[in-house]
Amino acid sequence: MTTTITTSPSCVRAALAVPPNVRLSDLDPSATPCFPGTGPQDAAQLTTQLSKELGTWQEKLYAGSKAKPTPPQRMLVVLQGMDTAGKSGVVRHVFGLVDPQGVKIHAFKQPTEEELAHDFLWRIEKQVPPAGYIGIFDRSQYEDVLVVRVDELVPPSQWEPRFEQINQFEASLVDSGVTIIKFFLHISPDEQKARLLGRLNNPNKYWKYSPGDIPVRSKWAEYMAAYEDVLNRCNQDIAPWYAIPSNNKWYRNWAIANILLDHLRQMNPAYPGPSFDVDEQITAVENSL
Amino acid sequence: MTTTITTSPSCVRAALAVPPNVRLSDLDPSATPCFPGTGPQDAAQLTTQLSKELGTWQEKLYAGSKAKPTPPQRMLVVLQGMDTAGKSGVVRHVFGLVDPQGVKIHAFKQPTEEELAHDFLWRIEKQVPPAGYIGIFDRSQYEDVLVVRVDELVPPSQWEPRFEQINQFEASLVDSGVTIIKFFLHISPDEQKARLLGRLNNPNKYWKYSPGDIPVRSKWAEYMAAYEDVLNRCNQDIAPWYAIPSNNKWYRNWAIANILLDHLRQMNPAYPGPSFDVDEQITAVENSL
Repeated sequence: MTTTITTSPSCVRAALAVPPNVRLSDLDPSATPCFPGTGPQDAAQLTTQLSKELGTWQEKLYAGSKAKPTPPQRMLVVLQGMDTAGKSGVVRHVFGLVDPQGVKIHAFKQPTEEELAHDFLWRIEKQVPPAGYIGIFDRSQYEDVLVVRVDELVPPSQWEPRFEQINQFEASLVDSGVTIIKFFLHISPDEQKARLLGRLNNPNKYWKYSPGDIPVRSKWAEYMAAYEDVLNRCNQDIAPWYAIPSNNKWYRNWAIANILLDHLRQMNPAYPGPSFDVDEQITAVENSL
Repeated sequence: MTTTITTSPSCVRAALAVPPNVRLSDLDPSATPCFPGTGPQDAAQLTTQLSKELGTWQEKLYAGSKAKPTPPQRMLVVLQGMDTAGKSGVVRHVFGLVDPQGVKIHAFKQPTEEELAHDFLWRIEKQVPPAGYIGIFDRSQYEDVLVVRVDELVPPSQWEPRFEQINQFEASLVDSGVTIIKFFLHISPDEQKARLLGRLNNPNKYWKYSPGDIPVRSKWAEYMAAYEDVLNRCNQDIAPWYAIPSNNKWYRNWAIANILLDHLRQMNPAYPGPSFDVDEQITAVENSL
C-alpha cells in the first residue's frame, strides 16, 4: 500500500451508526464500508497509524481531569456481541493502543447473589469510569434485556421496563459528563461456528471454549430479535449504537479505532493550564538542592 | 544494529538484584549493565522484541487460572521511586506491551480518612491481584515507611515494626500464590531537576507538575536513607527488590521488561487442558444450528 492512503473516521462513524428501525438481517457482517485498503495487512498498518492520535487524545482526557472540570469528562465504551464476536479482541487490539493507566476495563459475568439482590443497574453504576478515564464494559446493562430475556430469567413485566430505565440511566450519565459509545459486534452463525471449532482444534485455546456456548448458539434467532430491540429502543443520539461488521477481525478493529477517534475529536479534551506560577516554580526548582 | 543482538534476561536480573547491605551512593543511576546495544533506538527495538514472549506468558498466566490451581497463581509488581523517576512511564511502556485485560493497575495516593482509620495494609490487601492477573502497584505499602517516616506522620514506634509487618504480609501473599517483584527506580537529583524543568517548560506537561514536589525533593538525603532501609530490611528472596538505574528511560524500560520476562519464565504458567470432551464438543458445534 502507498502511504497516501488516508482514512476518514467520520465516514466510518456515519456508515456504521445504527439506523432507525434496523433489521439485523439487512446488515452484512462481512461488509467493509469506508475501508481504503485491500485487506488485513493494510488494516493492521492503518490501525497502528491511528494509535498516536488516539494516545494523545487519551492523555489529554486524563490530563484535563486534573483541572476538575464540571461535569467531569470521561468516556464509556460498551461492547456487546455473541460469543466469539471479538469483545476481548477489541479490548486487546484497539484499547491496547493507549496507555493502560487511562483505561478501566470491566467484564460483567453472571451476577453474584449480592448483585441479584439489588436492581440490575446497581453493579453497573459501580463500574462507571471516573473523571479522565476511558471505561470499557465487556458486556453491560444490556445483558439484562438479552440473556435475561431469551432465557426467561425474569418475566416480561420485569425486563420490558428496562429499555426505558437504561435510556434514563444513560441520559443521566451523559448529563454527568460521560461520553457513551456502544458497539454491537456483528458476526454470522457460520463465522461463529468456524471460531468455536478453531478453539476446539487448538489446545492453546481450550480455555476460551465453554460447552455452555452451544445452548446460547442454538438460540441465535431469539438473540438477534432481542438485539434488534436493544438497537431500536436504546439508540439515543446522546448514547449511540454502532453495528460493527465483525466477520473480519481486521476490519472490526480498524472500524472501532476510527469511531473511537471521531468521538474523541468531538469531545476535544485539552491539556489544562498551570495551577501554579510557572516562573516562580522554575526558580524554585533551579534553586533546590 | 544487527538482528543477531540477543539479550539475556537472567543477566539483567542478576545484575540489578539489590545486594545485601546496599548503599545507594554505590549504585550509578546512569549505569546500563548487560545492555547489548548502543543506545535508545536499540533499546526500543529490543524491548519491542520482548513483547511477543511477554504477551504469551501473560496469556498463559491468565488462561492457567481457568483451571483453578491451588494456590491461584498471579503476579504483583511494586514500583517505587522519587517523583519523575518513571513509575508511570514503566506502566505505559512495559506493561503496555501485554493485553490490558490481564493487568490490574493501582496507584496509591495519599490515604483517605477511611483508609487511615484502618491498619496500613488494609488498603493494600484490597488491591492484591486475583488469580491469573499481573497487578501493578504504583507506590505501595512502602510509602508507610518512606514519606510517613521522612515527614514524621507517625512516631518511630509505629513505623519501625512495619518492616517486619511488610515482610510477613509479603510472605503470606507468596504462600497464597503471588509472585512478588519490586522495582526501585533510581534517579539522580540532577536528573530529577532536569525532568521537573522539562515539565515546567512544556505547557502540555504542566499537569504532571506539582509544587509539592519541591519540599519532597529538598529531603532527598532523608529519602535515600529511608529507601536504603527498605532495600536492606525488606529484600526477602521470595519477594526481591531490584534497583533499576533510571536516568536513562530507555534502559529502565528495557531492564524491567527483561526482569519481568525472567520471572515469568520461572513461574512457567501453562495453558490448561480441556475441562470437557473435545471430540464430543466438536461434534456438538458441527451439528448446531
